[in-house]
Amino acid sequence: MSNRKFNVAVVGATGAVGEQIVNLLEKRDFPVDKIKFLSSPRSAGTLISFKGQQIPVEIATPDSFEGIDIALFSAGGDVSKELAPHAVRHGAVCIDNTNAFRMDPTAPLVVPEVNSDKIAEHQGIIANPNCSTIQMVAALKPLYDQYGISRIIVSTYQAVSGAGSRAIDELNRQSAAILNGDEVQPDLLPVGSLPVKHQIAFNAIPQIDKFQDNGYTLEEMKMVRETKKILGDESVDVTATCVRIPVVYGHSESVYVELKKDYDLEEIRNLLASAPGVTLVDDPAAQLYPLASEAAGKPDVFVGRVRRDLGNSRGLNLWVVSDNLLKGAAWNAVQIAEIIAANAE
Amino acid sequence: MSNRKFNVAVVGATGAVGEQIVNLLEKRDFPVDKIKFLSSPRSAGTLISFKGQQIPVEIATPDSFEGIDIALFSAGGDVSKELAPHAVRHGAVCIDNTNAFRMDPTAPLVVPEVNSDKIAEHQGIIANPNCSTIQMVAALKPLYDQYGISRIIVSTYQAVSGAGSRAIDELNRQSAAILNGDEVQPDLLPVGSLPVKHQIAFNAIPQIDKFQDNGYTLEEMKMVRETKKILGDESVDVTATCVRIPVVYGHSESVYVELKKDYDLEEIRNLLASAPGVTLVDDPAAQLYPLASEAAGKPDVFVGRVRRDLGNSRGLNLWVVSDNLLKGAAWNAVQIAEIIAANAE
Repeated sequence: MSNRKFNVAVVGATGAVGEQIVNLLEKRDFPVDKIKFLSSPRSAGTLISFKGQQIPVEIATPDSFEGIDIALFSAGGDVSKELAPHAVRHGAVCIDNTNAFRMDPTAPLVVPEVNSDKIAEHQGIIANPNCSTIQMVAALKPLYDQYGISRIIVSTYQAVSGAGSRAIDELNRQSAAILNGDEVQPDLLPVGSLPVKHQIAFNAIPQIDKFQDNGYTLEEMKMVRETKKILGDESVDVTATCVRIPVVYGHSESVYVELKKDYDLEEIRNLLASAPGVTLVDDPAAQLYPLASEAAGKPDVFVGRVRRDLGNSRGLNLWVVSDNLLKGAAWNAVQIAEIIAANAE
Repeated sequence: MSNRKFNVAVVGATGAVGEQIVNLLEKRDFPVDKIKFLSSPRSAGTLISFKGQQIPVEIATPDSFEGIDIALFSAGGDVSKELAPHAVRHGAVCIDNTNAFRMDPTAPLVVPEVNSDKIAEHQGIIANPNCSTIQMVAALKPLYDQYGISRIIVSTYQAVSGAGSRAIDELNRQSAAILNGDEVQPDLLPVGSLPVKHQIAFNAIPQIDKFQDNGYTLEEMKMVRETKKILGDESVDVTATCVRIPVVYGHSESVYVELKKDYDLEEIRNLLASAPGVTLVDDPAAQLYPLASEAAGKPDVFVGRVRRDLGNSRGLNLWVVSDNLLKGAAWNAVQIAEIIAANAE
């Protein structure tokens, strides 16, 4: 463990994920020398409290990264695409929470509990996977190691905070209107940049991000491609249906997984119970299983409803829940930063 | 078509499903001679409006069914178990919306679009399947007929109205409390008769009905067993994960189905578009897919997000939505009653 301190930049510091990154850097006592909060001009000037100081947010520019050692990006893919190369040019390691570099073969895509060994291979940019992928892969890794996985079929129940602070406001506003008997005028979800808007309050929207030519959404294809890359195994078949539901914090996932070997259900439970970053919550008799309401604010991935498939003896069903802003984003990124710091000369 | 009129009894007429049955009998101009609304002593005396008359609800007793031709039950399994045999003894045909007789080999389990031929085989009781099963089977029937089905993996997004009027009140009350920053005290869901209660507002609860010894809930096992019985094919593997979400009306389902033959995706769309009781809503470019908010109040089963599985070329993913109180309960029951009436001497 080095005693070195680091100059850190947080890009998108005022966003839903950025806020959590700042909180975690403070709470975890990350070895910060200087810290810089960057954003678009819209949020510049906002004061962010960090270790007793009020630090004004600065406009992010290519030269913002001079002297920065570690830059954490969560301001959207376009910002990362434009600015991360400048940060790298200035010598920073970028931990990017957007989709910009995830499938770039030169960028490791890292969930520390799964493939922290890849961090050392970076060429300046380390990609943080998509929220819905991270929690699923963290839960499946111990099963993958023990039995191998031939296929995954996942249906998600995703919180609106994954679409940012404005989506939280939209859910709250729509919910209040409907309870009040008023008309609802959706104006953000499912995808801010697309023309059609749907009601999210008291509804379930089977679209997260834009549709691709194959009929899957980008969110679904992220789960497919990222899972293969993180496991380092293109032979794992993955199918996803990603759905936004009226939850603020915490993604839930119904995961069917087909293992390559016969398994013992108790051994599966033991593997999950002892897996790093995973908490087994699985006691049907006591009505105990993971819930978004209880996972919110916690760093772990919670797994329950562990049961053998009724048709395929190598099939297994799981219910996987995690705070999408923490393990699904900020905490995974800060974990990567901590590993970089610990291994620095 | 007969011109006969029928003496009809609605048991549980004041419940969430019973109300819809009464509405449908009136709206569809069902050939009623006399109609009787029955309930527990708690609701007896309530006035129900039917075709301009205010009819008081009577206490349901074994002798309530004298002279009744058709009895529609939706007052819970215990009431059906106790009273349906008496209705049969009095010569009535019972259409039972509870779980009491669904797996009884002498009771046809009917979704009219799938197996209306079974109605004639009844021995006094016809079972209406579980809401989550009905919509899935109605959507899959045309695919089953054309290609055969080897397996189904379904994850549900179920509305609280499936747990009755009190669950709707609970969701509304909890939602208002949370929006107001107040503490929430859950007191009904997931299962009224079990000790542990969970927050449903802004949450997803992976338990509907009681757990069975195999780790599946009764709701999940209903989907498994009923699907096989309705399709008349025990060889179809079914796995279900049933989840309650903060929606009032309309169950959504993420359905993975493996067909027995290679298929053409356009042919699948054509089969669904022309299937009875099914409406295809599937235009990703226009962001069109089924939504609970739009299915509510409508009789059809809506199917969209039709896409080929990425791993298995005979696999297919669908998003299936329907109003759980209508096609999932009251409308399916009234459809059966209409067929009985049409075929009566």
